[in-house]
Amino acid sequence: MNIELGLNKKVRRAYGIDEIALVPGKRTLDYDLTDPSWLIGDFKRDVPIVASAMDSVVDVNTAVELTKLGALGVINMEGIQTRYKNPDDVLNQIASVGKNDFVPLMQKIYSEPVKEELILQRINEIKEMGGIAAFSGTPQAALKFKETLNNSNIDLFFLQGTVVSTEHLGVEGKETLNIKELCQSMKVPVVAGNCVTYEVAKLLMKAGVAGLMVGIGPGAACTSRGVLGIGIPQATAIADCSLARDDYFKESGRYIPIIGDGGIVTGGDICKCLACGADAVMIGSPIAKSSNAPGKGFHWGMATPSPILPRGTRIEVGSTGSLERIIKGPALLDDGTHNLLGAIRTSMSTLGAKNIKEMQEVEIVIAPSLLTEGKVYQKAQQLGMGK
Amino acid sequence: MNIELGLNKKVRRAYGIDEIALVPGKRTLDYDLTDPSWLIGDFKRDVPIVASAMDSVVDVNTAVELTKLGALGVINMEGIQTRYKNPDDVLNQIASVGKNDFVPLMQKIYSEPVKEELILQRINEIKEMGGIAAFSGTPQAALKFKETLNNSNIDLFFLQGTVVSTEHLGVEGKETLNIKELCQSMKVPVVAGNCVTYEVAKLLMKAGVAGLMVGIGPGAACTSRGVLGIGIPQATAIADCSLARDDYFKESGRYIPIIGDGGIVTGGDICKCLACGADAVMIGSPIAKSSNAPGKGFHWGMATPSPILPRGTRIEVGSTGSLERIIKGPALLDDGTHNLLGAIRTSMSTLGAKNIKEMQEVEIVIAPSLLTEGKVYQKAQQLGMGK
Amino acid sequence: MNIELGLNKKVRRAYGIDEIALVPGKRTLDYDLTDPSWLIGDFKRDVPIVASAMDSVVDVNTAVELTKLGALGVINMEGIQTRYKNPDDVLNQIASVGKNDFVPLMQKIYSEPVKEELILQRINEIKEMGGIAAFSGTPQAALKFKETLNNSNIDLFFLQGTVVSTEHLGVEGKETLNIKELCQSMKVPVVAGNCVTYEVAKLLMKAGVAGLMVGIGPGAACTSRGVLGIGIPQATAIADCSLARDDYFKESGRYIPIIGDGGIVTGGDICKCLACGADAVMIGSPIAKSSNAPGKGFHWGMATPSPILPRGTRIEVGSTGSLERIIKGPALLDDGTHNLLGAIRTSMSTLGAKNIKEMQEVEIVIAPSLLTEGKVYQKAQQLGMGK
Amino acid sequence: MNIELGLNKKVRRAYGIDEIALVPGKRTLDYDLTDPSWLIGDFKRDVPIVASAMDSVVDVNTAVELTKLGALGVINMEGIQTRYKNPDDVLNQIASVGKNDFVPLMQKIYSEPVKEELILQRINEIKEMGGIAAFSGTPQAALKFKETLNNSNIDLFFLQGTVVSTEHLGVEGKETLNIKELCQSMKVPVVAGNCVTYEVAKLLMKAGVAGLMVGIGPGAACTSRGVLGIGIPQATAIADCSLARDDYFKESGRYIPIIGDGGIVTGGDICKCLACGADAVMIGSPIAKSSNAPGKGFHWGMATPSPILPRGTRIEVGSTGSLERIIKGPALLDDGTHNLLGAIRTSMSTLGAKNIKEMQEVEIVIAPSLLTEGKVYQKAQQLGMGK
Repeated sequence: MNIELGLNKKVRRAYGIDEIALVPGKRTLDYDLTDPSWLIGDFKRDVPIVASAMDSVVDVNTAVELTKLGALGVINMEGIQTRYKNPDDVLNQIASVGKNDFVPLMQKIYSEPVKEELILQRINEIKEMGGIAAFSGTPQAALKFKETLNNSNIDLFFLQGTVVSTEHLGVEGKETLNIKELCQSMKVPVVAGNCVTYEVAKLLMKAGVAGLMVGIGPGAACTSRGVLGIGIPQATAIADCSLARDDYFKESGRYIPIIGDGGIVTGGDICKCLACGADAVMIGSPIAKSSNAPGKGFHWGMATPSPILPRGTRIEVGSTGSLERIIKGPALLDDGTHNLLGAIRTSMSTLGAKNIKEMQEVEIVIAPSLLTEGKVYQKAQQLGMGK
Repeated sequence: MNIELGLNKKVRRAYGIDEIALVPGKRTLDYDLTDPSWLIGDFKRDVPIVASAMDSVVDVNTAVELTKLGALGVINMEGIQTRYKNPDDVLNQIASVGKNDFVPLMQKIYSEPVKEELILQRINEIKEMGGIAAFSGTPQAALKFKETLNNSNIDLFFLQGTVVSTEHLGVEGKETLNIKELCQSMKVPVVAGNCVTYEVAKLLMKAGVAGLMVGIGPGAACTSRGVLGIGIPQATAIADCSLARDDYFKESGRYIPIIGDGGIVTGGDICKCLACGADAVMIGSPIAKSSNAPGKGFHWGMATPSPILPRGTRIEVGSTGSLERIIKGPALLDDGTHNLLGAIRTSMSTLGAKNIKEMQEVEIVIAPSLLTEGKVYQKAQQLGMGK
Repeated sequence: MNIELGLNKKVRRAYGIDEIALVPGKRTLDYDLTDPSWLIGDFKRDVPIVASAMDSVVDVNTAVELTKLGALGVINMEGIQTRYKNPDDVLNQIASVGKNDFVPLMQKIYSEPVKEELILQRINEIKEMGGIAAFSGTPQAALKFKETLNNSNIDLFFLQGTVVSTEHLGVEGKETLNIKELCQSMKVPVVAGNCVTYEVAKLLMKAGVAGLMVGIGPGAACTSRGVLGIGIPQATAIADCSLARDDYFKESGRYIPIIGDGGIVTGGDICKCLACGADAVMIGSPIAKSSNAPGKGFHWGMATPSPILPRGTRIEVGSTGSLERIIKGPALLDDGTHNLLGAIRTSMSTLGAKNIKEMQEVEIVIAPSLLTEGKVYQKAQQLGMGK
Repeated sequence: MNIELGLNKKVRRAYGIDEIALVPGKRTLDYDLTDPSWLIGDFKRDVPIVASAMDSVVDVNTAVELTKLGALGVINMEGIQTRYKNPDDVLNQIASVGKNDFVPLMQKIYSEPVKEELILQRINEIKEMGGIAAFSGTPQAALKFKETLNNSNIDLFFLQGTVVSTEHLGVEGKETLNIKELCQSMKVPVVAGNCVTYEVAKLLMKAGVAGLMVGIGPGAACTSRGVLGIGIPQATAIADCSLARDDYFKESGRYIPIIGDGGIVTGGDICKCLACGADAVMIGSPIAKSSNAPGKGFHWGMATPSPILPRGTRIEVGSTGSLERIIKGPALLDDGTHNLLGAIRTSMSTLGAKNIKEMQEVEIVIAPSLLTEGKVYQKAQQLGMGK
């Protein structure tokens, strides 16, 4: 709070992941000595990547494949998969609509009700194929479908809104979600978000969440920051919430993983989030680029279908390779979007970090020129880091 | 004054609204619990938006519609509406002229004299249709037409120049406006501006103004900042003037609303201005985009017609929807330019602010990467926040 | 020296004119009360503008017209005007050569020797037409042509190199210019530059110069900063040198005007230079845009013709109006490039500055968003401030 | 460590070479008095430029010519020259492949094994033509080919990896390079890198290296910073490592030259690196632009051929002149890419620096606007500094 915005306000400076760089220390490591595994609930995952609960990113097949690759995929419980028995037609419509007609189409598609039986069906399909059944819902959906979920084979529940808080003031007479009660009454761990501050992170941990999604509005297809003016750039948000995790761990003995969510395009972005303190990241657009993604080369924000205030758009991300190539390589692209696990482990080996905990402690510098210094040709020719 | 510009100058850093972000606190609210209403003079308005006194933005019909939507529209007393009995031809000329011929055309159009009877006619037309009759004039026009206005049905007068001060040194023998006398002798409240500093804001409040417009040169079609080098970015300007309002309120018991004027393109921009301390905003280009705006898809700065030193240009803003859709939604666009009231209230609900006063107290961070972090695709494809 | 560049270096931050803004104070003035006149040698000039000693900017006719408009124009004593009896052919060649062949053409054109008789002829032509005969030369040319100039009708001599110093170490046996001796032995005042620091400015003043040009490398067509890595952004350079002027004035009673030279595109840029402490500005590209300029719509840097290391390029500036319109208006453009005097005086009136001395004392803020805040349409449509 | 990235992290700000500028002092020098020579091992070089060990930059012929021009060229011991007896076909393939097929082609080309006899052949070819035989290898190659090199006519060995450290933790049972042992057992001086911090630089010097390459990821064709998130902008990296050199010199009496490597496009960039503390620079793309370069107008990063995680791309740099013209001029381009030695010496003369040591002590300022101030036309027209 050391900057004077104006005579009436002292404020902080917050940093984005494009403004920082990681600094090699005096030790380096062999690639094979790095271990980026992490724990969410009781699930140990070898890859610190969670695919976002977005309709362009995760469906039943990709959720299963992500599980097998050592990562995790979350299905949007209020998305196309649970509104439509046969989602493919709808996904094709979205992939082929013109950019001016996109918002009204989305508003129409998402006006179809979510169906309880489809939620159960999708959970069962994943379980039958050997996947981890992780589903996300908004606070309203959590209230509505809690019993359904408790009677299902679900493994993990992600309570996800643009912003969540433990203290939501509702209109009198209308039921409001109590996150503490939800955590106690759900039979599976509840991962919650999104939040960006130490205080809210700590309150959510005290309420019993099993993981925390950090990030408001940085998503590639999200426009919330423009529409609402709200958010904190990711480097600072993750750093602040990570301290809440560490403090809470000291107080309680419970270690709640921090999942940096949004604004991540390359392997380098993931590494920076881990170094800021995240235990894993949640990514949408990098996974939507896989040839098996339900978005068919497109990706869209989950606040887009709002009937009154859409806060997301549709971007074209293309299909650049298989999901396996994107997660585990080998890479055929030089821009950090293939072999994300290889990028994480190579970065760890270069930085001398054996595991995520050591990665969280590497030196960071503020370095806005990291991505532009010397890159005039790449930028002019839209290659590599200049794409 | 802690930065050394050079050996002879210590200066401050001033911030623009693109450099800040709003931070959610520990409380969130239901949308229905938010109340963004405010008071100007004795008029309570449900929408904290004033449409600019610009010829591309407000005419009689839009002024009336804005009143009915809970907002406010101001008519330029020295504009096309009061120079021409039938302004439509002139507006069509402006909308169809090539960009190289624009300035001379404007200089010609605005050389036609302002007519007292048209001022009175426009006031009466608004009143007959149930609108609030708010008109703006420069200091020179205020001197010239004060009696006319005092004998009319006008509701609010906006005294507006690029920069106003309570201490204007005039050439000897030439009458100079005394703002204090004007406020005392006008039968309606006088809202004045523009200013950007604590000191001038305080002096104008002491002179008796009923509202203050804050902002020099940020307007979408304005070029004053380039031509004159003058201005303070809006976040700091609003913050400084808001402290003047609070201090003056403590001293006098009079609460003078601060109206952030200029530089506002999206709902997020409005929310940021409120969080910096504004009670409402004055916007031009976002309203000029309505299908009923007099600008017919174009928007131009009010210092453009100057016969010797034009300081505004004409921009094409398009026609994206009805005035109602822009103010109250539902939005069909995902970029924060439809449903501005919805954006304000959603932001307030997310930030836990019940009313404008609480909105003025939300946490702000300096966050230049807020609008770019993760948005590479939107920028490359000119979608959403990348438009 | 409060910033750590690295462990071995403490450095300062220097600011450019695009990073600052001027802040209106509590007083405003009528336009007619502003007086931007200044004194160079014994010449009082009503317009604080000097046209650069560049071949695209000043020839005999424009020098005379600038004198009559109240400004000043300097002729390059080692340029096309003094190498060629009939420069028009050469100027046409430059205006029509392709961009890849420009440098070799320049190297060839400037290999023609400077002719003493043409120097004298140009001086006489100006004097006969009633102009002020101001000529510039490098240190080498000053050595070579000093006697010629002392036997001519010259009014002012500008000693101008990319960088000048009072302590130049030469190769043994080779004559080196002593600026103090030059100032004493020239019959006319010597204006010198360029420099950017307090220390050098003070030493040059002590050596007897009658004016100081401040700025290294910001010129529109100059590439020295890229080729050599040298320079200080103009706001800081002018501020530092202005303090040297004030300190020297206190010590000696001699007031040496500071001329901000380079990096100036608009009226706003000029106003910012004056507010940083300049008494006048030297401008090239804005004058090269006049329909009577010798550059015929083009402008080039004076270090371009170097046979071994060109440090300037040729830019197309177009011809946008008469010299009178550019200096005194009325403006037909809205981007601050017409009516520069009007812009200066309007800015002074808005800022409450009666004269240059008061203009040098107006409040400045660091405001990088001054020129971008709210200007998305102008930038996208390349209009006004977005050109 | 004075900036709060977040509540859990205090960090430093690091600066890139585009963010700084060099400040002329009170003395200037004749060009002929400047001496930019330096010493690497026992080789005195008149030009402080080393051409990068990249396949697009140095082959036998260019290595020899660089020696004769007073500079130095390093051959990549694991590149095309040592994998293929007749490299020309392969180089033509690289120059003609489409950008989407580039990575797989590179992966294929570099899967051909390195041949011991070709290493020896290239060394002998250089020696026979009178050149300095400088070869680079990764730590793995150093282990593998150490004996071969010790039995050859090599002059200098460059141990080069993206990041090297003196403390590399290897998988048990796998041999790991000990840099100290390597330096002791090699018959020629070992120059090592890259590194970016004081601590690692000091440790490498203590291990016995004869020179240090500083810079991680700034190279024109490198994408490591994007893929891994790692690096420190060059100005700070060079400044930090230079202090290590000075401290080590005080302790040991051995002076280890610092070679700024990467991110350098123009003469101005070289000058800035020297002023930050470098003794010389290693450059790739500026040399790849020579008409005799093996890249044939293209340039690519050396981490590109990685079979699992490519971290470099191919950029088109064109062929703009002979190697002699690029190093020693005369320049036919105005953008600082011809006559690099002339740029260094002109900058030294302007800054009053007689030799590299004095150049390392010139004043630097943080000046992000150095390269943009006043350059609107160059940028819009892609000329000079706007290319």
